[in-house]
Amino acid sequence: MTDPDILGAYRFDRANDPSAGTPLALVRPTTTAEVQTVVRWCAATATPIVTRGTGTSLSGGSTAVDGAVTLSTEKMRNLTVDRATRTAVAQPGLLNAEVKAAAAEQGLWYPPDPSSFEICSIGGNVATNAGGLCCVKYGVTTDYVLGLQVVLADGRALRLGGKQLKDSAGLPLTKLFVGSEGLLGIVTEVTLRLLPPQAPACTVVGSFASVHAASRAVLAVTSQIRPAMLEFMDSVSINAVEDMLSMGLDRSAGALLVAQSDAPGPAGVAEVELIERAFADCGAGEVFSTSDAVESEMFTQARRAAIPAVERLGSLLLEDVGVPLPELPALIDGVAAIAADNKVTISVIAHAGDGNTHPLIVHDPSDVDETARANRAFGQIMDLAIELGGTITGEHGVGRLKRGWLRDQVGDDVMDLTATIKAALDPAGILNPGVLL
Amino acid sequence: MTDPDILGAYRFDRANDPSAGTPLALVRPTTTAEVQTVVRWCAATATPIVTRGTGTSLSGGSTAVDGAVTLSTEKMRNLTVDRATRTAVAQPGLLNAEVKAAAAEQGLWYPPDPSSFEICSIGGNVATNAGGLCCVKYGVTTDYVLGLQVVLADGRALRLGGKQLKDSAGLPLTKLFVGSEGLLGIVTEVTLRLLPPQAPACTVVGSFASVHAASRAVLAVTSQIRPAMLEFMDSVSINAVEDMLSMGLDRSAGALLVAQSDAPGPAGVAEVELIERAFADCGAGEVFSTSDAVESEMFTQARRAAIPAVERLGSLLLEDVGVPLPELPALIDGVAAIAADNKVTISVIAHAGDGNTHPLIVHDPSDVDETARANRAFGQIMDLAIELGGTITGEHGVGRLKRGWLRDQVGDDVMDLTATIKAALDPAGILNPGVLL
Ligand SMILES: Cc1cc2nc3c(=O)[nH]c(=O)nc-3n(C[C@H](O)[C@H](O)[C@H](O)COP(=O)(O)OP(=O)(O)OC[C@H]3O[C@@H](n4cnc5c(N)ncnc54)[C@H](O)[C@@H]3O)c2cc1C
Ligand SMILES: Cc1cc2nc3c(=O)[nH]c(=O)nc-3n(C[C@H](O)[C@H](O)[C@H](O)COP(=O)(O)OP(=O)(O)OC[C@H]3O[C@@H](n4cnc5c(N)ncnc54)[C@H](O)[C@@H]3O)c2cc1C
Repeated sequence: MTDPDILGAYRFDRANDPSAGTPLALVRPTTTAEVQTVVRWCAATATPIVTRGTGTSLSGGSTAVDGAVTLSTEKMRNLTVDRATRTAVAQPGLLNAEVKAAAAEQGLWYPPDPSSFEICSIGGNVATNAGGLCCVKYGVTTDYVLGLQVVLADGRALRLGGKQLKDSAGLPLTKLFVGSEGLLGIVTEVTLRLLPPQAPACTVVGSFASVHAASRAVLAVTSQIRPAMLEFMDSVSINAVEDMLSMGLDRSAGALLVAQSDAPGPAGVAEVELIERAFADCGAGEVFSTSDAVESEMFTQARRAAIPAVERLGSLLLEDVGVPLPELPALIDGVAAIAADNKVTISVIAHAGDGNTHPLIVHDPSDVDETARANRAFGQIMDLAIELGGTITGEHGVGRLKRGWLRDQVGDDVMDLTATIKAALDPAGILNPGVLL
Repeated sequence: MTDPDILGAYRFDRANDPSAGTPLALVRPTTTAEVQTVVRWCAATATPIVTRGTGTSLSGGSTAVDGAVTLSTEKMRNLTVDRATRTAVAQPGLLNAEVKAAAAEQGLWYPPDPSSFEICSIGGNVATNAGGLCCVKYGVTTDYVLGLQVVLADGRALRLGGKQLKDSAGLPLTKLFVGSEGLLGIVTEVTLRLLPPQAPACTVVGSFASVHAASRAVLAVTSQIRPAMLEFMDSVSINAVEDMLSMGLDRSAGALLVAQSDAPGPAGVAEVELIERAFADCGAGEVFSTSDAVESEMFTQARRAAIPAVERLGSLLLEDVGVPLPELPALIDGVAAIAADNKVTISVIAHAGDGNTHPLIVHDPSDVDETARANRAFGQIMDLAIELGGTITGEHGVGRLKRGWLRDQVGDDVMDLTATIKAALDPAGILNPGVLL
């Protein structure tokens, strides 16, 4: 497909990189065999390929590249759920929410829940090793991938892993592809492990005068238990969500923590009490607990709505920095200092329970000076995370936007090894050019 | 070290391969830098290296190779546990049990528990992605590895990952090394994720007239809940363990299942009842439950002792085949048929809850005909597992013993990719020659 109007719709992902290219053509295969045909043609003509799920990447992973075909998986939508093996076999174009729903219909649970779960594809989740809200207790995408079908850069299709729960036969290639950001192959089918349903959760919400107090409360919880969720919002994001959804959030709070326990019975009661006490001890102004599913979902929704809500304040540069948990207060304080230094608004939301934060740098792209300051802050935040022994990306991936910082984090030797593996699997470099390397 | 007596002690691993070579020399470095020196010397002189933890490999992974240096990690024994980040940083030569104990001292838990946990090294666990008894609920080694230091075939030392709980920066290289059986690099340090302590478990033991009935009971449990343990012993192993330990196991049982629930409070009570009911419904003769820790440990110990106990009946060819759970009865019935066909004793023990079985083929190596029949059965069992959509190795790795079957399981393209990655990282092929490839 080469209709310019349609191609235009495939230029950007959610990183909205102004330097995005325009696809040479758009292909929307429906089967592994069709993906192979496309890849073989591209390999023969040295045409690069950008693989695209639903384009919710926040790091420019699915941004179009001039001269490259965009291969969208949106028409690859088969799904079977197998109760007996507790697995789902999904084509990559299905939404995460669709996989969750199909599992739920069979009385099963697919845990990984990026905030974007209603709009992101399962193939994109695999390619980025997506995290989410429950991963503080239940792990990230890679923990649920038992098998893959992958089309390599030369057009061969591999089957890796399968429905067996444990498999040590050969190199751990399934794991190599999960989180490889489409650099090594195109995922055309995923076999996912499903769990019995999650027990009903209790939610505890605490409002704090400062982000610093809230970040200390995070440590007070995580040093004692593994909550099923522990999310953080600062006052900018609270107010932005309140503007958008009018939920009655406390607009005067400096920060909000939303925690959940899904431990059953008395153990759950004990966890909830422990969280309430930790919040209070760290100076929470108000602590509210509920076991009502609708009320709980409302708070989770508030947190999930944070990125789109803050996006209404201006264009965003989206960070995804993570640190070892004890460094969380230092990271959050440091981000505030960077915001002040650069005179930009930075709203911090976080999957706080695993030290993964999303400072959102708000700016007006038509204001050249502010944009420069925002870009400077963007780099300084990643530098800070590296300094604190952390990562420039906890879950969104490096994509095209963060590749300038990857070497600073991992060092020359790891970059070399990355390039060696890329060259071994995709010598002509046709898969996702510009990502990572 | 080249003293022949000492070298002799490093020829075999627990697979006892009669064709084991003799190390050219034994080196026992204490630091990453010393490992680098050894590897650089080996690279310069094209001398192959066999890395060895404590040599408990059941697939010939650490068997000596004529002309190769054996690098033993036994003197690399540093360990620090960090309560704040809930991590342990361990050198590879520590025993799994030592890591567990050090974590427990800080009120934390390192879950992976291969039956050999008191005698196997944490580096060997990482290299094989070891499983164990609690992995049916708590996952395998890779789920706990946050970071690694690895010496590559050219002597460079890489740091991968770290103490941050989530990290999507770059290719998932940490995961590539876990389970790579020492083919791609030598692990010189591991950063492990620790958990809060496990809740006290209840144990349910069921004795069954037949292996078939017990294997159906496994499905009856796993289709409803995730037990914290679900282990299987057949009558040969029950009697062998009873001969060795005199615990009062029911010698007349055709099979025994040992299950645990560690769900707290009423949820645990419900799980125990469900397991008891599932066992009874599948025809268990006797079902015994206990929440006494000492009694529970006794049954777990009985299961752990099964391999050494059956070893006293003769030499063993040790299988590690796994299948998707619904195929478990077919696998267990099929193994019985293969035993009958080949007129050899095959004792089956299993981490049944994740479909991972260890048929132990007993034979007398001085009996040429029996050994030939045992070898034939060894291959037939792997063929059967592949036929049932499973794997030739669930947790022990391919090593040197099972490499003849790997291609049958994964196919030519995956073997090609494996060789491509091996060649990219270790072009001269000096690391662990004969393993996998
Ligand atoms: C509001 C909002 C909230 C978000 N919250 C979270 C969150 O909580 N946690 C989180 O992890 N992420 C989050 N994200 C980021 C994003 O949703 C995830 O990275 C998601 O996994 C991307 O899926 P996608 O289908 O949109 O992928 P795309 O954006 O289309 O692609 C992402 C990357 O994966 C590659 N790719 C896609 N499909 C394939 C395939 N089949 N084979 C090979 N490579 C492929 C692309 O080339 C690209 O590099 C959020 C995004 C938004 C907009
Ligand atoms: C009685 C018994 C019960 C067992 N039960 C289980 C079980 O329940 N689950 C399970 O998974 N396994 C089990 N095993 C198998 C074995 O204990 C595991 O495979 C264990 O992980 C091996 O550790 P090791 O230190 O003995 O490694 P070794 O045997 O010394 O080496 C194993 C492999 O790892 C490589 N290796 C070792 N250290 C390193 C390193 N630092 N860097 C790179 N490569 C390295 C070696 O080259 C070799 O390929 C059992 C073994 C026995 C004898």
